[in-house]
Amino acid sequence: MAQMMRAAVLHASGEAPTLTLEEMPIPEPGPGQVVVRIIASGICYTDLHIMHGDWPGKPSLPLILGHEGAGYITALGPGVTTLKQGERVGIPWLSSSCGLCDYCLTGRENLCPHQQNTGFSVHGTHAEYALAQAAYVVRLPNNLDYFEAAPLLCAGVTSYTALKEAEVQAGQWVVIVGVGGLGHMAIQYARAMGIHVAALDINDEKLSLAHELGAEVTINTRYQNPVARIQHLISGAHAIIITATTADAFEKEIGMLRNGGTCVLLGLPPGGFSVPIFDVVLHHFTLRGSIVGARKDLQDALQFASEGKVKAITDIYPLTDIQNVLTQLAQGHIHGRAVLQIA
Amino acid sequence: MAQMMRAAVLHASGEAPTLTLEEMPIPEPGPGQVVVRIIASGICYTDLHIMHGDWPGKPSLPLILGHEGAGYITALGPGVTTLKQGERVGIPWLSSSCGLCDYCLTGRENLCPHQQNTGFSVHGTHAEYALAQAAYVVRLPNNLDYFEAAPLLCAGVTSYTALKEAEVQAGQWVVIVGVGGLGHMAIQYARAMGIHVAALDINDEKLSLAHELGAEVTINTRYQNPVARIQHLISGAHAIIITATTADAFEKEIGMLRNGGTCVLLGLPPGGFSVPIFDVVLHHFTLRGSIVGARKDLQDALQFASEGKVKAITDIYPLTDIQNVLTQLAQGHIHGRAVLQIA
Amino acid sequence: MAQMMRAAVLHASGEAPTLTLEEMPIPEPGPGQVVVRIIASGICYTDLHIMHGDWPGKPSLPLILGHEGAGYITALGPGVTTLKQGERVGIPWLSSSCGLCDYCLTGRENLCPHQQNTGFSVHGTHAEYALAQAAYVVRLPNNLDYFEAAPLLCAGVTSYTALKEAEVQAGQWVVIVGVGGLGHMAIQYARAMGIHVAALDINDEKLSLAHELGAEVTINTRYQNPVARIQHLISGAHAIIITATTADAFEKEIGMLRNGGTCVLLGLPPGGFSVPIFDVVLHHFTLRGSIVGARKDLQDALQFASEGKVKAITDIYPLTDIQNVLTQLAQGHIHGRAVLQIA
Amino acid sequence: MAQMMRAAVLHASGEAPTLTLEEMPIPEPGPGQVVVRIIASGICYTDLHIMHGDWPGKPSLPLILGHEGAGYITALGPGVTTLKQGERVGIPWLSSSCGLCDYCLTGRENLCPHQQNTGFSVHGTHAEYALAQAAYVVRLPNNLDYFEAAPLLCAGVTSYTALKEAEVQAGQWVVIVGVGGLGHMAIQYARAMGIHVAALDINDEKLSLAHELGAEVTINTRYQNPVARIQHLISGAHAIIITATTADAFEKEIGMLRNGGTCVLLGLPPGGFSVPIFDVVLHHFTLRGSIVGARKDLQDALQFASEGKVKAITDIYPLTDIQNVLTQLAQGHIHGRAVLQIA
Repeated sequence: MAQMMRAAVLHASGEAPTLTLEEMPIPEPGPGQVVVRIIASGICYTDLHIMHGDWPGKPSLPLILGHEGAGYITALGPGVTTLKQGERVGIPWLSSSCGLCDYCLTGRENLCPHQQNTGFSVHGTHAEYALAQAAYVVRLPNNLDYFEAAPLLCAGVTSYTALKEAEVQAGQWVVIVGVGGLGHMAIQYARAMGIHVAALDINDEKLSLAHELGAEVTINTRYQNPVARIQHLISGAHAIIITATTADAFEKEIGMLRNGGTCVLLGLPPGGFSVPIFDVVLHHFTLRGSIVGARKDLQDALQFASEGKVKAITDIYPLTDIQNVLTQLAQGHIHGRAVLQIA
Repeated sequence: MAQMMRAAVLHASGEAPTLTLEEMPIPEPGPGQVVVRIIASGICYTDLHIMHGDWPGKPSLPLILGHEGAGYITALGPGVTTLKQGERVGIPWLSSSCGLCDYCLTGRENLCPHQQNTGFSVHGTHAEYALAQAAYVVRLPNNLDYFEAAPLLCAGVTSYTALKEAEVQAGQWVVIVGVGGLGHMAIQYARAMGIHVAALDINDEKLSLAHELGAEVTINTRYQNPVARIQHLISGAHAIIITATTADAFEKEIGMLRNGGTCVLLGLPPGGFSVPIFDVVLHHFTLRGSIVGARKDLQDALQFASEGKVKAITDIYPLTDIQNVLTQLAQGHIHGRAVLQIA
Repeated sequence: MAQMMRAAVLHASGEAPTLTLEEMPIPEPGPGQVVVRIIASGICYTDLHIMHGDWPGKPSLPLILGHEGAGYITALGPGVTTLKQGERVGIPWLSSSCGLCDYCLTGRENLCPHQQNTGFSVHGTHAEYALAQAAYVVRLPNNLDYFEAAPLLCAGVTSYTALKEAEVQAGQWVVIVGVGGLGHMAIQYARAMGIHVAALDINDEKLSLAHELGAEVTINTRYQNPVARIQHLISGAHAIIITATTADAFEKEIGMLRNGGTCVLLGLPPGGFSVPIFDVVLHHFTLRGSIVGARKDLQDALQFASEGKVKAITDIYPLTDIQNVLTQLAQGHIHGRAVLQIA
Repeated sequence: MAQMMRAAVLHASGEAPTLTLEEMPIPEPGPGQVVVRIIASGICYTDLHIMHGDWPGKPSLPLILGHEGAGYITALGPGVTTLKQGERVGIPWLSSSCGLCDYCLTGRENLCPHQQNTGFSVHGTHAEYALAQAAYVVRLPNNLDYFEAAPLLCAGVTSYTALKEAEVQAGQWVVIVGVGGLGHMAIQYARAMGIHVAALDINDEKLSLAHELGAEVTINTRYQNPVARIQHLISGAHAIIITATTADAFEKEIGMLRNGGTCVLLGLPPGGFSVPIFDVVLHHFTLRGSIVGARKDLQDALQFASEGKVKAITDIYPLTDIQNVLTQLAQGHIHGRAVLQIA
């Protein structure tokens, strides 16, 4: 008889979705797969998007959510030779990719059109055990515990990759819009790369955190005009990274760029925003979407944390609290990253 | 007493502006300047924007329009040692830049915030003589006549630069939206770089021209759904270059890109367009404005033409026809590029 | 009882090595592997290096040589789902790589320290059948026959990749040193990318071929000083690609570069050459080694050929002639590429 | 009658050259020029190369040496509008460039074939006053004194630019060979960019300094095999920067690179070194010369110092000590950078 595990399962998405804690069989590993005993599982705003069904793409229901799973390997499927039982690994958003398309062949497997995603198209990590592809899990550095590692598996790599996509160099300025789960990590990655940071938020407490993490300029956009401030203080930013989960302010925020600057979007709010063509062309702006990161980006993002340069601020909650935590996240009350303690 | 010349002068911009042909004194060259006897002067859609005043920035009125001026040098100002009387040169949109800012120091003087622009902030080339900065005119290759050279000075360099900004490589696909003054040159530059071209327009005659110039796919967007066609035929484009002068279709056209693709905007229509955030992020799209080009880009653009790989299709009109030509341009009746014969 | 096949086998490398044609069992495919019925197998100068044992690394003896094998699939190992029996494929130098190192994760698996190489560390394609990894064979475009395709699998991709590594752009100049198996393809790839070509050789017949293939400048280095010629004609090259199989002239040839230029080495002759430090530093030269190419490069290299832009010049020989062909290759008597007809 | 100044003048280069302190007329500024009262003037190994005449190119004799001159403007030539009397500026190696060649137009004026060089082809800064081109001096940040600024004008910008040319990213490893005037700054620039540093020298005291400046690995190449150590500790470096002034060890040092790595040369020792072709090709190494830097690089290099991230270690000597200081430099006894106090 199959061994059982507890898992947070979504049965239907919509306006008032609920996650139920259920007993399910522990999965068996197929060829190339591993089973991971999950210890810590981070909660991402994407969990909310999936629950509310506000994305064009739809999840595979019923679904175990979660794509920041940290734990250790308990079972190896046939043909897995590069990992062993007991190894500490992380399970990220990218569950698998085809391995053969143009993107997979050029180290951009996060763009693979045939990819599977953890906690979206396949079961995720808000559960005591999770199934993963051996070639897509990441080894955890020894000096990071599971709770430190979990938020790096999505928030960390997404922030790190966005900075690379922004093509901003040491000594230049980046504006980080939003000091939440993504933003508070982006600040740290930027500082670790020698990049100057201005942080924007509507919450003074979060801006105070931004300052502690190395932001040299902080702007509360409730009281201050960020475009005027940024142009005055630093003559325009070389890059902007927008982590905000709503599209309200995008149009104006582009005005913080200096000529030739780049604005990277990495959140996935529904809706659109209006681009002022004249400004984009005359000032030679670049707008770019950045989606999580590839496996090498994930390894690099963990390496910075392993060297002590980046540390996620986390609050730890029991798995049973998951519904409550998601509610608080939706209301903007989570500072840093919420991580479920599963074991 | 000053020698006099004829020039097409704009006195006021607005809904129904008129250009008047007037007698004005031939300019005298100051330090670092040259006077050029204009033989050919290309007409750009920008002339219409300036006349209608539909840009955020405003021209210096009264103003001689024109920024594709080809002719020969008749007078040298003090200190000019790199050019001589009689040399054949072109006067482009970039009249001068500061020479000292970050952009000027890195070969991107077309982004200089202190730049002057021919036929906009300083007098232009729709006149028998024009004043120019010696360091900003471009030598014309011997085997190009003035009428071949003129359209390269803005339409040519703008198209060429946009292809570079699109970061599309030989063997990949670019979609050129609009087969007008800019688009018909972009097709040729792309082919000269070994890039595959799909061309879009609403006019079968222009699409027929696109095919002759090397476009391997042509799509009339009146009858055909370009997104469906492009995805079907080439699995999505690596890049799109939008030369259209209105913003109507931008939002949908992004859907022609494959994951990771780049959409370059180079026209300056008023207004904005709505960017679907989810698509831009998930598919890792890049949108980028491209504004004319730097001096090295202009030299390169002329070099391709000099080697016979690119040739502007032109209709030649006397200076006295300028108002009529502009009206036809506004109505979409000009194929290729209209060039004024001044001499 | 195992089915048998004929193969050209090397038993010992050294000064006067011989290949023997032998009967061997047709291989059986393991997991992830395919068996390919070889129709055409190109002969590469690397075969000579392996036979003579003049490289630091040593082959796995006894060894079937050959790494430009074109044929069709006759058997699939367990788990192979992306290919099917009868599919036309090519087997290249890169037999397999680890899939997990920094290079494999960034699309540079040709740099993987754990790679296996066809006809070197594992059996090659100078045989009626060859074993290959499903993930590392390349599909052959329908409009290329086996004899057209074979030389692309090493000479083609190596030439193509070298041009990319040279970072030379459309409209710029590359000097191709040596118009042999690699050089005659590099000329065509360069032309297909809009790059100007100067070709150097010591053989007028080969230079005549270079001219036919699109080289705009040809220089016989027996009679002419290439540095003086190149500096006179084109004011220095943006890049040099050295395909020569001996290191004699390298030191001087760098002088053909213009400031900031790049010299790419892609042959693997034994020995070294002396770099004049002062020149390299003052003129900001780059010297770079380029080794074959990654899987995406190989696909691209085939695509250019499929579009008719690149075509290897081949002479076809029966497998029984292999020793004779290798002797002629060593003496510089092969024009273009020699390909064995196996079937 | 002309005002006089003291200057260190070279009359003949050769084996035992001498500098004489002489009285000369203070220069008068021509169009576009400024006169600078020099307060501090750094001594560079290049001064020794020029004195010994061991370069292919020869200086304009008699010559005032020095190209790290920091001071303030005392006179402006006709047409200089961007600077004013009393402004604090630095005079670097690049005295002027043509402004019109491919390199000048793309922000690489340090490669201009028509450049003039301070203290080499035109008089330098080891004097109480020096003439400079307004467009090529650099403003000194307010919080750097003249003695802090002087070494940045050559050693600083050369080190900074070499790191950029090495294309090494935050989180990767660079090996700095030689902890002298250039090396001790390269270590600091690397750390400010988030790059890991291993430092090599033959002097334990210099290695101790390297450690204090942030080098995480130090290797004394008198006692230790650097290739074995680097491969053992960090599995090979992503880049090497060789600041050594002799070419002895170059050939072996390439072995410290990991596959795909880059070795940047920035010193100008006479002679050459032998490149092992097989290794360079098989491991896809890049060797690149880097010569000082462009004006934007110089501004950036000063900016890092202004932010307190980089500080040259200097010993200050009176101008009258110049011959003695050069002798000590030749013998390897100078730690950090020697700077002459002129005022």
